[in-house]
This record gives sequence, structure tokens and C-alpha cells, in this order.
Amino acid sequence: MRVKDTMFRSIWIDGESLNIIDQTQLPHEFVVKELRNSEDVRLAIKNMLVRGAGLIGVTAAYGVWLAAREAPRGSLADFDTYVNNRARLIAATRPTAVNLVWALNRQLEKLTQARTVEEKISLAKLGALGIADEDADFCKKIGQHGSSLIESLYKKKQTTVNVLTHCNAGWLAFVDYGSALSPVYAAHDNGVPVHVWVDETRPRNQGASLTAWELAQHGVPHTLIADNSGGHLMQKGEVDIVITGADRVTRLGDVANKIGTYLKALAAVDNKVPFYVAFPSSTLDMSISDGTTEIEIEERSEDEVRFVYGRDPRGNYVSVQICPDKTRAGNWGFDVTPARLITGLITERGVFPANKVGVSDILGDADGRN
Amino acid sequence: MRVKDTMFRSIWIDGESLNIIDQTQLPHEFVVKELRNSEDVRLAIKNMLVRGAGLIGVTAAYGVWLAAREAPRGSLADFDTYVNNRARLIAATRPTAVNLVWALNRQLEKLTQARTVEEKISLAKLGALGIADEDADFCKKIGQHGSSLIESLYKKKQTTVNVLTHCNAGWLAFVDYGSALSPVYAAHDNGVPVHVWVDETRPRNQGASLTAWELAQHGVPHTLIADNSGGHLMQKGEVDIVITGADRVTRLGDVANKIGTYLKALAAVDNKVPFYVAFPSSTLDMSISDGTTEIEIEERSEDEVRFVYGRDPRGNYVSVQICPDKTRAGNWGFDVTPARLITGLITERGVFPANKVGVSDILGDADGRN
Repeated sequence: MRVKDTMFRSIWIDGESLNIIDQTQLPHEFVVKELRNSEDVRLAIKNMLVRGAGLIGVTAAYGVWLAAREAPRGSLADFDTYVNNRARLIAATRPTAVNLVWALNRQLEKLTQARTVEEKISLAKLGALGIADEDADFCKKIGQHGSSLIESLYKKKQTTVNVLTHCNAGWLAFVDYGSALSPVYAAHDNGVPVHVWVDETRPRNQGASLTAWELAQHGVPHTLIADNSGGHLMQKGEVDIVITGADRVTRLGDVANKIGTYLKALAAVDNKVPFYVAFPSSTLDMSISDGTTEIEIEERSEDEVRFVYGRDPRGNYVSVQICPDKTRAGNWGFDVTPARLITGLITERGVFPANKVGVSDILGDADGRN
Repeated sequence: MRVKDTMFRSIWIDGESLNIIDQTQLPHEFVVKELRNSEDVRLAIKNMLVRGAGLIGVTAAYGVWLAAREAPRGSLADFDTYVNNRARLIAATRPTAVNLVWALNRQLEKLTQARTVEEKISLAKLGALGIADEDADFCKKIGQHGSSLIESLYKKKQTTVNVLTHCNAGWLAFVDYGSALSPVYAAHDNGVPVHVWVDETRPRNQGASLTAWELAQHGVPHTLIADNSGGHLMQKGEVDIVITGADRVTRLGDVANKIGTYLKALAAVDNKVPFYVAFPSSTLDMSISDGTTEIEIEERSEDEVRFVYGRDPRGNYVSVQICPDKTRAGNWGFDVTPARLITGLITERGVFPANKVGVSDILGDADGRN
């Protein structure tokens, strides 16, 4: 997508070097950073230089490639042990998002097909490129399917369609296009007048720092709001559709996504606003049913709540403390939106109802319906 | 209430000088500020040095006293014109909270009983003192009625009762005790183990800066959370009761309160958590019925969303920008929680259902039931 009129992806390789955009520096600075080894990859995911369901999966896939490059060349067994260990450490960084484990497993599975170290390194690189391209392709298709929802709202309303989104599920959260924002970009590019209410998304403010930045770079009209505001806007008829991303979707259609998503879904239902969740099928976790009880919710540092990062009046980047010195804080990264609150699931295969049948149809899995 | 083991009110007179705690400096600095004239009062309310339903009413009442002191002494007509004009300017600062207009009207009405300027000045001072004492008395009674709700949860549960609150409706929002926090203080003082989940309350962070500070000064266990977290905690059974304040309550029991309150009420209903709203009867506005359509919602500066105020690592107090330079923001101060979502209204007269009958019973108004 567009950054100052140059097209970027959120992660790319340039010869043998792996590059990312350091998202902790946005929106104030656009910094490209090279990840030189699998430990760089682990730290980039853990410290959220890269974040978002799709992007952490793709970054982890490249991490397997870097692990293979740096692995001991003694025996295939030593090599495999090293790569598997590095993959396990990368997987441990973010417990809620399923794409991370999905991408790592796909890579490790692929590597079992090779007989030599050189072949494994080559397969790891090709595998990561494949996952990245598939992610971009799936997100583009999510945009095509989702934009028709926005366009039909426009046909009824004949004036600007107001979309509310939470957190960042744009191209920065994937390789390109994004999930929740992909339909917005597609509608905008098709000439449909669209405006986005951007939840700031405390505690890490991905809405204020990433979604607002992305939308501005692409020229999509938007307004930043406190996370508290969405219900009021829905009561006032100022929201036509809510679209969020997802970090894990169960076989019954429950959705784990950024903390606060559940509150917006409740408000959408209460005000008869359609509530959609957009994600590539790699976000499905068919091994679990009830999201509220079965999905592990990541707990993060309390300082993410106690401090807010931004640019001070002198142009320095600092974290300011917003509470008394001794205040303790709780910080859960995600919550679960039950399927009953969700109007539909937007995927690369089309738009499906949020229930057991809909989810198995995403996978084209006739057996899953039973 | 307690500040470093000294008892304070949020506003008091010392001889002829009117003093407040500058709440924009909390939690980092405890600064007492003298308001010398009615323009100081207007600016203190407008710029939120004082805030909260009860306190802005009491401060405005003292503003009438200061206006009377500074008014021209030529004729009674000139005097009255001046005082009425100053009252009108004070009333214009915060359109949503009803206590402000209620207190000003009560003062102006009282002044019509006096025949001389000196008598009016004296009545204005006595009137303000009376409103302040009544506010403290009513809040104390709210605590007595509300603490029985917490105590009966404790009797059932036999372990710490978890209360979730939004914004600051503690003693800093009134003269003493508070509304939503008064039951918490009363229960705590009665030896009931109670813990408070404190919503940070973006955009102005009254939860992080005021509620956390208040509770710490009084020794009540509490945890700061992002506004996004409450729904997740309720799903996990970690919230036993929600208690918020109110800025205006309609005759049918709809409640205008800090933006985001509505989202917590929806989550409470979805998880069968009792949701109570605590306020003195001066917060009732019997002239309106439907809160969602009839209450004017204050819009505030977009910079309250775009910047966050706090203490930087060098100990300086600064506002840091959290979004791109050109990002526009929307900032509504309040939302409306429909009566249907509210378990009960805690007032100085007892706990009442949130409906027409309940509200008229608060006023002991048998006619209002019709």
C-alpha cells in the first residue's frame, strides 16, 4: 500500500536481507529495520515492532528461514533440533493469535520434505515467500468481498458510508491490503464515499498510531475517537457498519480480537448496526469451539496501561505516566466476541455467517458441517 | 476525605477566600488554588480544574457569591443584572451536567428574597454553604444505601467484592464522599473486602488520574484498566457489580454520564452483572424523558483525544501527541445509558428502580408516578 506515494509491503526481502517497518515508531517516524537472525524476529514480534494477525505469522515464517540459515551444520538432527527450538521460542511470544503457530507449523512441516540443509534453507525461504504472497492475495480478496457490503450500504443511503473499526487490521497488520481495512480501501478505490471512525485502541493506541496513519497515506477520510465513543455514535446513527479484524476464530464462529472489540459488538447489536469480522482462513482454529472459555488471553505489561507513548512539544518521543506512582494495572490484549453478536465473517472465500456451518463453509469442508 | 492523612473537602471557604483542589494537576501534584472572582470560577469549571456533577454545581453556587461580591453597587437592578449575567456565563461552560444549572437557579432564586446588596451577598454565601453541606450529606447517605448492596454481595460470595467504575464519581467529583465511590468507601470502612476496577476513562483519564489517586489515599485496593477491558473482565466473572455516577438523569431513568458508560452497561446486562448508577437527587432533570434524543451532549476539543497528559521520565508534565499531525478527532464528553440497562439508582433517599415510578419515588412525588 501507499506510503508517501511509494508502494510498500509491511515485510519484504531484498536479496538475502529481511526488512520490516518498525511499527513502534509510527506514526511519527517511518523506519525500515533489517531483521538479521531468528532472535531479531522473536524480539520484533515480542516487542511489537511487527504486530497484527497476518504479519506476525509471516514474520515467524521468515524467522524459520533465518533460523535455518544460522543453524549448526553438523548433522540434520542437530539442524532440526535448533530450528524447532527457535520456532518454539518464537511461538511463545504471543499466545492468542493463531496465525503465528499456523505459519510456524506450516514451515516446519515443509522442512520435513527436504533431505539436506541447503534444501531446507531454500524451502524455508520459498515457504515464507509463499505464505507472504498468499496473505496478500487473501487480503485482496477480503477487500473485494467486503467492499460489496459497503457499496450496498451506499446504494441505500446515497451518502458517505461510516465504518467503525477497532485497533489496526489494515495492511500493517498483514503483508498488504489488510483484513478489516481491505474492504474500505477497495470501496474507496472504487469511488464509494467512505469515512472511518478510528478507535484509538488503548492501551497501545494502534488505532491512533497505525490505522489513522495508514488511512491518511491512502487518502481515506477518517476521524480518531476514544474507545469510549463508539456506542454513542451508534446511538446517534453515525455508524453504518462495524468491521474489525480477528486474531483467532473458533469452529463455532467466536472471535478473539483486540481487547474492546466485544464492547463494540454489543453496541452494534443494541443499535442494529451490522457487525462484521474480516480475516483470512489461516485465522481459524478448528480445534476449539467456545472462544470465551477456551482461548488463552495474552496478559501484557502493566506499564502499557500506566504510560502513554507519544511526541512531546519539543519533538522528543517519550512515555508519560498517567496514574499515581504506586498504581497497579491490569492489561489483557484481547477479548472474545461471541458468534451470536456477529453479522458475518468476511474471508478470502466470501462472506459467511458466524456459526458452525458458516465456518466450515469457509474451508469448503462439507464434513465440518456435521 | 483523606489526603495524606489530613481530611479534605474538594472545595471550601477559609474566611472570605474560596479554595479548590486543582484537579488538572492530579495525581502528580496536590495543588490548592484560590478562586478570587466569578471569572476564576467560570474558568475553573470550563477548564476542568473542578469537574464532576456535584462539584461543578457547588463551585457555580460559590460563583454566584463571588459575582455578588464584585457586582456594581449602584442600584439593585444593576447588581441583579450583573449577577444574572455572570451566572449565565458560568452555566454555558458545561451543557450536559444538570447540577450546574440547578445550583445556579437555586442561588438566583434565593437572592430574590433579599432587599439589599449586603443581604444578597450574605444570602449567596449562606446558600452556597448550604448546597455544599447538602451535597456532602446526600453523598454520605448514598454511601450508606449503596454499601448494603456491596455487603450483601459479600455475604453471598464470602470473598472480595469486585466493583467496576468508570470515570471519577468519588469525593473529588462532589464535595465529599462521592456518588459511585461513596458505597465503596462505606463498605471498606465497615470492613467489607472490596476491590475496584478503575477504567482509565479516555480521553481525559479521570479514572487513572483521580479515581486511582482517591482510592489509594483512602487505602482501598484497586487496579487500573483500559476502558476496553471491562467486558472481558465481566465475561470472566471478575466483576460483581458496576457502579457509575451520573451527570443528568431523566424522569424515565435514562442516565447521561461520562462517554463509555453505555458500553459498560451493555456488557453488564450481557453478563448478568448488576449495573447501578449513584447520584444525589439534584442530578434529576424531570423536564425530559428520553435521554438519548433529548440530552445535549457536550463536544470538547479534539486535542483531548490527540494528546495525552502525563509526567515524562525527567519529571516534567507534558502532553504527548499520539496520532499523525493532521489527524482530526471527535470528542463527545458523555453518552446516554437507557434505563432498561440499569439495575437500580442509588440516591440519598435509597435505592430505586430506573423507571418512571422509581424516579418519582426518589423525589417522594406521588403525582410524578402518573
